[in-house]
Parts: sequence; structure tokens; C-alpha cells
Amino acid sequence: MSQSKRKLVYGEKIQPRRLKGFQDYPPEVMRLRLKVMDDVRRVAELSRFQPIGTGALEYAEVLLGQGAETDKQLYRFEDQGKRDIGLRFDLTVPFARYVAEHQGTMVFPFKRLQIGDVWRAEKPQKGRYREFCQCDLDIIGVDSLAADVEILSCFQNILSSLNVGAFTQSIGHRQILSALIRSFFPEIEADGEQQVLIAIDKLDKIGPDKVILLLQEVTGGSANKEQKLIELLLPGNSEGTDLGPIYDRLKADVAIVKELRRLEKTVELVRSLSSGNDGCLGRVQINLSVARGLGYYTGIVFETVLDELPAIGSISSGGRYNNLAERFTTRLLPGVGGSLGLDRLVGALIELKRLDSTSNTGVFVAIANDGAMDYGFGIVKTLRNANISVDLAMKAGKIGNQFKLAERLGVGSVIIVGELEKENKTFSLKNLITGQEKRDLPLFSLITTLAES
Amino acid sequence: MSQSKRKLVYGEKIQPRRLKGFQDYPPEVMRLRLKVMDDVRRVAELSRFQPIGTGALEYAEVLLGQGAETDKQLYRFEDQGKRDIGLRFDLTVPFARYVAEHQGTMVFPFKRLQIGDVWRAEKPQKGRYREFCQCDLDIIGVDSLAADVEILSCFQNILSSLNVGAFTQSIGHRQILSALIRSFFPEIEADGEQQVLIAIDKLDKIGPDKVILLLQEVTGGSANKEQKLIELLLPGNSEGTDLGPIYDRLKADVAIVKELRRLEKTVELVRSLSSGNDGCLGRVQINLSVARGLGYYTGIVFETVLDELPAIGSISSGGRYNNLAERFTTRLLPGVGGSLGLDRLVGALIELKRLDSTSNTGVFVAIANDGAMDYGFGIVKTLRNANISVDLAMKAGKIGNQFKLAERLGVGSVIIVGELEKENKTFSLKNLITGQEKRDLPLFSLITTLAES
Repeated sequence: MSQSKRKLVYGEKIQPRRLKGFQDYPPEVMRLRLKVMDDVRRVAELSRFQPIGTGALEYAEVLLGQGAETDKQLYRFEDQGKRDIGLRFDLTVPFARYVAEHQGTMVFPFKRLQIGDVWRAEKPQKGRYREFCQCDLDIIGVDSLAADVEILSCFQNILSSLNVGAFTQSIGHRQILSALIRSFFPEIEADGEQQVLIAIDKLDKIGPDKVILLLQEVTGGSANKEQKLIELLLPGNSEGTDLGPIYDRLKADVAIVKELRRLEKTVELVRSLSSGNDGCLGRVQINLSVARGLGYYTGIVFETVLDELPAIGSISSGGRYNNLAERFTTRLLPGVGGSLGLDRLVGALIELKRLDSTSNTGVFVAIANDGAMDYGFGIVKTLRNANISVDLAMKAGKIGNQFKLAERLGVGSVIIVGELEKENKTFSLKNLITGQEKRDLPLFSLITTLAES
Repeated sequence: MSQSKRKLVYGEKIQPRRLKGFQDYPPEVMRLRLKVMDDVRRVAELSRFQPIGTGALEYAEVLLGQGAETDKQLYRFEDQGKRDIGLRFDLTVPFARYVAEHQGTMVFPFKRLQIGDVWRAEKPQKGRYREFCQCDLDIIGVDSLAADVEILSCFQNILSSLNVGAFTQSIGHRQILSALIRSFFPEIEADGEQQVLIAIDKLDKIGPDKVILLLQEVTGGSANKEQKLIELLLPGNSEGTDLGPIYDRLKADVAIVKELRRLEKTVELVRSLSSGNDGCLGRVQINLSVARGLGYYTGIVFETVLDELPAIGSISSGGRYNNLAERFTTRLLPGVGGSLGLDRLVGALIELKRLDSTSNTGVFVAIANDGAMDYGFGIVKTLRNANISVDLAMKAGKIGNQFKLAERLGVGSVIIVGELEKENKTFSLKNLITGQEKRDLPLFSLITTLAES
């Protein structure tokens, strides 16, 4: 039956349609994605983050309840066993489930690396897809300055390794920001505070004047206090938000003063870790206007913007949360972590034309006649054993056509063999970059000739 | 609102349930999966296969119609835009869609590498999951012996690099098998032939006697011809199926004799490519009883079994197909390719205990007092810059507890620093394997001391 379905006549062919918001990755893009993933892994493993994996599908109840927006964007359906399931929309919620399930065998603090695709049925826009890859780093099971520093610094090291140019990591603090809001609006309720946070989060996009108007809608104020709040938050210079007036304002609150000191020390340590590193192009600044929309952050929050492409938004964000797995377990598991948006970064690398120039390497073996195919495969074997990447003609034929194919495949040189070369145990070589040709070289000189060419 | 949903009281917590048939990959398993993926990529890229990627979701019409079984196992649902969509159940069907969509910009023959997860709502069994990872290699746009050899040989090279011990690649041929079946049962129709193929496919599992009974059900014969057919197909010795009697039987069919010669030459070339390779533990044999269930194969078909673990079934299978993208385009695109089952291979590596002994490498920096944290981070920076993987205490505290943690994390040595070491610019070192301790070493000797320890 499947057979008859597959044998369609011309008019009945299916249009090869891709889903809106989903991408195909041709080799030149896929190589970049793999390179970024490799770099993330390499740097994270130097810091002994441990790779884990979880499934793409979860019970819907595990995924739901993280906010009206993500609930609405969830790819959710009933499976063959009538289970209510969905595709993960981030890697944090499944990780919370993972930790709750495996806590008995895990060593805490646990430093986690996870790279994987996530799915959100949101409106596709430039740089925003319905399927995209996230790289997550977290340290679970400890609330400490060292853990905050380790996360911020590891994201810095990853970005520095990626050839995306200079970038700025902006660090805010949710508790300090709340204290500051309450110092202006002591009567504000939890809901109102959340709205204020969301408004402040828009500073980058809509500017201070419009944010002040939004704040007035929540507070009912006359713009004075709202303006003063925004002035205090915004970075005065490249060093970031001036903490002096904030200490002054909040000095009566011992707990908050402690957090302010920890924040200063955190930034100082992250700076000292990146300074003097060859190629570290990261700048770190305190920016108390960084709020991050999601409700669960309780300490530092951070965002990272490429200096040359601020418009694409944050490429790595996260923060500290009090209790990762509170929906699943009574065990208190504080953590700090963040995500790197792989597809946004790859898009940036393409836009900035910061691509590796790895073309014109490798060899193509051209085959003049069918009888020389086994001889050609022998050459291929020798070269691959010497770790040289080699392609060969899949059919014997006109050498001119094989040269054209080799050029399109981006190799650096072509080896030509036919029955004569097979008989004499020789080969000919053409360097596609210089155009230079050498004929009837002895087979035993294969590797040395290639190394010299 | 999301906030209120997340603040549940104890009794209302969600059970951290994983879906049946889905796996979590803890670090020790995830590292193995990544290693296998890295090896596949490295070997395939030496042969200049090109990595591509496609989305996990496709229009259902793209995925459906490949057989009643896969149709039934499809995770299929309606998205927010009322589209009828599904999760891919293999990487071949999406690749056919990819080729039909991008053929205008592709260079043929195209050698494709794709590694990705696929989903099937089938009954979970040992080694069979609802989500699993496939590694696919294909060469599209050419029908040639060289392409068949390149695919078979590349899978051999990949398996040889994976430390799974000796294995046997069994190569059959769909057209030759069909001709042989028709030489015994000239009246058989397409449907009956398909049933015969499916019965022959079960030889490994149920043995020749039961297969002969199944064949009789289709042919209505008296077991004589059925028995003779099976005898001809089965490998007589380690060299595989004896082709002599098959040439005799089919010598009148010029096209089939040509295919028999090509099959012999293919196996000969694959053997010559693996022979003499250090560490190539692959054996190649012609086995005409290899049928492969799916309808689309038209030339060679192959399966691969680990000699030490035959019971887990084929770990790499595939074959030649006439026309990859026929459902989408009128352009004729013959190809050859196959899949490697990553999760089955990882399972085999675990069962055979062929794991890398990469434990006890790396360093842990223990911190005696909070004041030494910045000094500890400085040491961490120096070591990571020297490409040494380092972890450090996330909080200062009892050194004994930090030693215990370091042991559980599997590092080889612990560096201990406190305020005294910070003041004197020194460090202490304990080798966790030998138990040896050195105290108050000068900081400038850090890298050399570690290299010696």
C-alpha cells in the first residue's frame, strides 16, 4: 500500500514546502553552526561544565505555567497514548524536571551544559524562528558570588572565542531594582511592580520618555519620581550605572547594601578574569535598568549585546534564581545560569562576514577511465589515512568536467589518474589556486608532493 | 498570572515525570553520544561529506505515505495556524524535500552528512526509544559503483574509529533478489514479491524453517522451491553467499549479470579499502538474504552487525534507491546512502564497557577562606589559558569537604589556596591519585608543577 501511495503521477506530486519559521541549513551555514557549538563545548568543558541531554517532548504540565506568552506559543498536542504533551520551548524548564528526577545521583553544585533545539509558535521575524538552538550554562545547588562570576566569565570566554567582535555584558540585579522601585513607590503591589519591571525592560527599545509614560500609567504619579528612578538606573558612562546615589538611597536596608557590595565585587572579578586575555573583547558594566521579563530571577540578571550589531538584541542572557525546581520538589536548589542564542550568533557571523576562510583545502581525485577506479580509490585511502580530506569522481569521464566539479567543491588541488598512471604507478597533479600542473609523478611521492604543492 | 501558577503549595507540586520511551542523558552518557557524533563528523568530513540540517517539524503530507507503520507512528498534530504537521520519523524523507527545494543551488553529486533526532511513537523496548538520533550519509545525483563503495567504506571507517570491536557488513542486492525470486515463482505479483521480501528479511530472527513456512503461505508451494531459494541466498561461509549457482540460474538475464558483476566488484573494492588499515575490524560479505523492508531500494542493500553483540540488531543500514525526490520533482535523482543508529551504538559501547577512561584529569581549586576567592580565580584563569580544565570551589569552606567534592567530580589533583597563600603568592597541591601533597609552592611554578605531578 505504501508503494502505491508513493507512485504518483506528475500532476499529483507534492510541493516541497518548508514550514514557516523553520530553516534548512545548507553546508556553509551548518558548518558555522557546528563550529559555534564546538567552541561553546570546548570553552565550557575547560571550566568543567558537564554536558547533559533531555528529550524534545515533555508532558504539557511540566512545560505549562511559565507565563501566558510561552503557554500560548507551546506546540502542544495529544499523542497516540492520549497523553497531553508538548515540544520544549526552552532548556531551563526541562532541566528543572531533570534535576528533580535525578537529584539523588547528582553531585551538587552541578555545572550544566546543554545545547539543543527549542520550539515556539511565535510570529517569525528577522532573526526570530519557530525552531532555534540554545546553549545553556547553569550552576545549581549553591548561592554564591563565585558561581555568578563563573557563569558570567564563561559566557565572556565563549563569545571571545567566536570572532563576533567587541561586546558588552550588562549586569543588573533584580532585588536591588525592586528595592529601588519600592523606595520611590512604597505602596506598590506585586502586580504593579511586575508591570514596572516590564516597562523598564523596554528602555533600549522605546527610550526613557515613553518608559516614563508607561510608569505613570502604573503608579498614577506626575512623572517626577518616575524620571528620577530612570535617571538613577541608566548607565551614566561606559563604567555603567553610578552606584553612589543608589547606596545613599538604600543605605538603611542592610540586606540590599550587602547585595550591592556583592554585585560590585562580582563585576570586579569578571573584569579581572577577562583583562589581559588575548582576544577578549568583552566589556562588563553594571546596568540596573536590565530587568529581564521572566518572573523567576532573584539576584543578578544579565544581557549581552554585540557592539557592531546592537539591533539584533541580546545574544546571551540569564541570571540568578532562588529555586530552580520548586514546581517539582521541596528541596531548595538555588542556581545561576543563562542561554546563548546560537542562531542569532550565526546570523551575526554571516552579517558581519566573519566567516572562516576554510575553502580551497582538500583534494579531488579525477578518474580518466573506469579501469582506473580501483587505482583512484587506493590513492584516496592513502590520503585519508594521512588525515587529508579527499573526494573523488563518482564516475570516470571527461577530465575538463571533473575540474569544473572540483572547483565548485572548493578543493585546492586535483589528482588525475587513468589506466596509464595505474600501469606506471604514477599520478598527475593540478594546483587549482596557482594553475600549476605536474605530470607522471611517482606514486610513492604522493604525500610529500601534496605537502609541497 | 504566571507567577501565581508557579507559587504552588507542597501538595500541589507536579511530579517530575519523563515521557515513556524518552531518555535523559546524564553527563557520562552525553559525553559518549558527543564523542560518537564527533567521530562520525571527523571521518565523514575526511571523505568530504557535507553537513546539512533541516527542521524537526514538517508538513504531514511531506512525511506521510512511506508505509502504514511509519504513518501510524507519526507524531502528528495541528499547529496554532491550523497546519497539519508532524515530527520527522527519519532523516531521509526531509532530505528528499530539501533536495527538491534546493536543487537549483546544489552541486551534484552531493555528498550529505546529517546528524539529528527522529521520533516514532512505537512500543519502547530495550534499545528502542521513541526519540533517537540518526547519523545519515548519502550520495545523491549519480548511479555508480564508486558511490556505492564510498558509502559502504565510509560507514566501515566510522565504525572502526568507534572502539566497538569487530563487525560484519552484509551486502545484498534488491534487483538480484527479485530476479531470483521470480526465477522460482514466475507468476508472482508485486504484492506477493513484497511479502516474500519481508519474510526473507526475518531469516536472522526466526530461522530458515519458519521463513520457508511463511513463503509457502504466499506462494502456495510445497516447500521444495522455497527451501532451494533460501539455500541459495544464505552465506555458505564467511565469504558470504556463493554467487556461482546464482550466475548459473540467472545467466540469461544480461542486466542482472551486470548487476552481479558490479556487486562483486563493489565488495572487492570495499575490502581493499579496509584491508591493511590499522584498527579496521570490519568484515564485508555478500549476503543476498539481506532484503531491508522498505520499498524504495533498487540496488545494493546493507546491514551491519557487531560480532560481540549480534542481538542488538543492525547498527548501520541502507542501500541504493532509484529516485530520492520522486514525490516532489520530476528530476531523476538516484542515490545511495544509509543510517547509523547512534543510540544503539552508545548502548553497545556501554554494554561492552568500551568507555574512554578520561576520568581523573583536570584540576579542582579549593578555597580556604572567602578572602582568597579572587586569588583562586586568578589561578583558574592561568590554568584555563593553558588549556587545562579547572573547576573551583563555589564557596570557601572546610578543605576536607572540598577534597571529597573534588574526588566525586573525578579530577586528578587539587590546588589549595587561602589568605596566607594569597599573601605569599604560593599554592599547595594534592595529587588525588597518589595522595602526594606539596605545600607552599611559588605561584610562578604553577604550570610546570602540574605538568610534573
